[in-house]
Amino acid sequence: MEYGDVLVLTEHELRKLVSLNERTVAQIEQGFAELEKGNAVMPAVMTLQLPDAGGAVDVRSGYVKGLPSIAVKTASGFFSNPDLGLPSCTSQMLLLSAENGLLLAVLLDNGYLTEVRSAAAGAIAAKYMAPRFAETVGVIGSGIQARMQLEALKLERSFKRVYVYSTDSDERTEIFLSDMKKKLKVPVEQAESAEAVVAKSSIVVTTTPSREGYLRPEWVHPGLHITAMGSDSADKQELVPGVLRTADIIACDLRSQCIRIGELRGGIEQGIISDETPIQELGAIILGRQSGRVDEDQVTLCDLTGTGVQDTMIAMLAYELANEKEVGLRIKN
Amino acid sequence: MEYGDVLVLTEHELRKLVSLNERTVAQIEQGFAELEKGNAVMPAVMTLQLPDAGGAVDVRSGYVKGLPSIAVKTASGFFSNPDLGLPSCTSQMLLLSAENGLLLAVLLDNGYLTEVRSAAAGAIAAKYMAPRFAETVGVIGSGIQARMQLEALKLERSFKRVYVYSTDSDERTEIFLSDMKKKLKVPVEQAESAEAVVAKSSIVVTTTPSREGYLRPEWVHPGLHITAMGSDSADKQELVPGVLRTADIIACDLRSQCIRIGELRGGIEQGIISDETPIQELGAIILGRQSGRVDEDQVTLCDLTGTGVQDTMIAMLAYELANEKEVGLRIKN
Repeated sequence: MEYGDVLVLTEHELRKLVSLNERTVAQIEQGFAELEKGNAVMPAVMTLQLPDAGGAVDVRSGYVKGLPSIAVKTASGFFSNPDLGLPSCTSQMLLLSAENGLLLAVLLDNGYLTEVRSAAAGAIAAKYMAPRFAETVGVIGSGIQARMQLEALKLERSFKRVYVYSTDSDERTEIFLSDMKKKLKVPVEQAESAEAVVAKSSIVVTTTPSREGYLRPEWVHPGLHITAMGSDSADKQELVPGVLRTADIIACDLRSQCIRIGELRGGIEQGIISDETPIQELGAIILGRQSGRVDEDQVTLCDLTGTGVQDTMIAMLAYELANEKEVGLRIKN
Repeated sequence: MEYGDVLVLTEHELRKLVSLNERTVAQIEQGFAELEKGNAVMPAVMTLQLPDAGGAVDVRSGYVKGLPSIAVKTASGFFSNPDLGLPSCTSQMLLLSAENGLLLAVLLDNGYLTEVRSAAAGAIAAKYMAPRFAETVGVIGSGIQARMQLEALKLERSFKRVYVYSTDSDERTEIFLSDMKKKLKVPVEQAESAEAVVAKSSIVVTTTPSREGYLRPEWVHPGLHITAMGSDSADKQELVPGVLRTADIIACDLRSQCIRIGELRGGIEQGIISDETPIQELGAIILGRQSGRVDEDQVTLCDLTGTGVQDTMIAMLAYELANEKEVGLRIKN
């Protein structure tokens, strides 16, 4: 590319280029490691409220020292969009050179890259924290992240059965079951309750936009790993905070963010978590500075809220792959 | 456009579509009026520092209630770029629907739209504040904004002569003089000092990135209007703060911002300006809530720092014009 060239990639192209696979997980893992090493700079999210339209636009970014580029992600959430047949949330990314600030690429991914980088974080949590021999895994929710988190688990553990609980319509849940059976090539069954999912599973991923904790401490059993990735704002919560008390290891993607908008928030509000509570960031576990699971009977928990560094890592990967495969529209500018 | 279509406009296309003319000035004027009416929401600028590369990336945005779209501008400043033959500052904008958050357009303007919206603010300042019969105007600096601010003044006042002072090389200053003579169709001459420019002119626009006030209060004469648009960060300053004391009317684009990063900052630091000092925002003058110049002998001053609302207004205009003229690349996404 010459100076002034901008690469434009559509969602269709990005879906073909970037998959949830080992390379992607390794890329996101590198991001968390750099974050732990203190090599990442992430400014606070910028939020533009559009109260009349019941919407908001968030901008986030992350710079990783030594890496050639940075992503700026603009994400919209408009609650009445589904009534109009439009997605409630979407996003796109700009990739800028970290050396000279010039625009390298416009990634018109409609939120796809965010889905992938979020699922990759789930894979990393499972890699270091889930029991090694997990026969059964469970997921609460049946949206895109429920699908992708299961695919992410499949990269890290060879489970034999999946249980799902969702408040979605029977029709949509049926589609989910049938799709996931095909993708994962194992039985995928509906459970009668979230409690039943937890009871039957050694790994559980919670993926709902619940506003109230529903996963209760008395459901937790030895050997359970929970990845809670639904809460990403101060009004969402999936775990009854007492669950935090049951965990031998509590991990998260970014402590300073999880205590504001993740499951750690409820723990702090109820006095279960304090500044002294040992909470490991994924990067510290990846680098071996803190330990992940060391015993099949430990209860482990990972709170994921999503970080600007993940956006930068996935956008960089997309750009690399597009250049390798010469995909996308090059605009002389 | 259908849902999912994204319009991509290059700098070349945007330069043909958007000019500094009456329609553009009216568009920016509407933005300032909406700001005054309390209809604009502008989150604080998000800044990502890249200290290793001596650079920073700023993101700003502005929502104007009732208008159909919002711009998100990503602007880079990398100080060593000129050594590499690259521009030190550049930017681009995304235009999102304010109704559903979807991406409407990618404006690859390389900073051009920012130049135009900044110059348009200068035109508005002159329209309401400059003496009606201004024979001679002056500009300090000879960069892009020196050029565009002169073109902006030409829209509002029929001056007969221009004086310029710049610390640029003689060669570059010669090019400036010759270019501007052609564009403005009046004599454009080099003055021997900034002081001489002020002495000879009834309107002066300061456009430099000076880090120290150079325009002195004792230079100010009855009837002078100054538009100070160079300072847009806390380390820049063009006016010796005492100049503020000489002004009968002090105006600005956005008080809360100018006291941090504009010329008002120096006034506050030296105790010349307090919370009680009457300072008019341009929007209040446009709406007639505050008066602009009412007497040819008044000394008037306008401090411009640039606002996210101007970005939204100019991006909307570019999008409108592109749709009217069917310019740009429509990407199905």
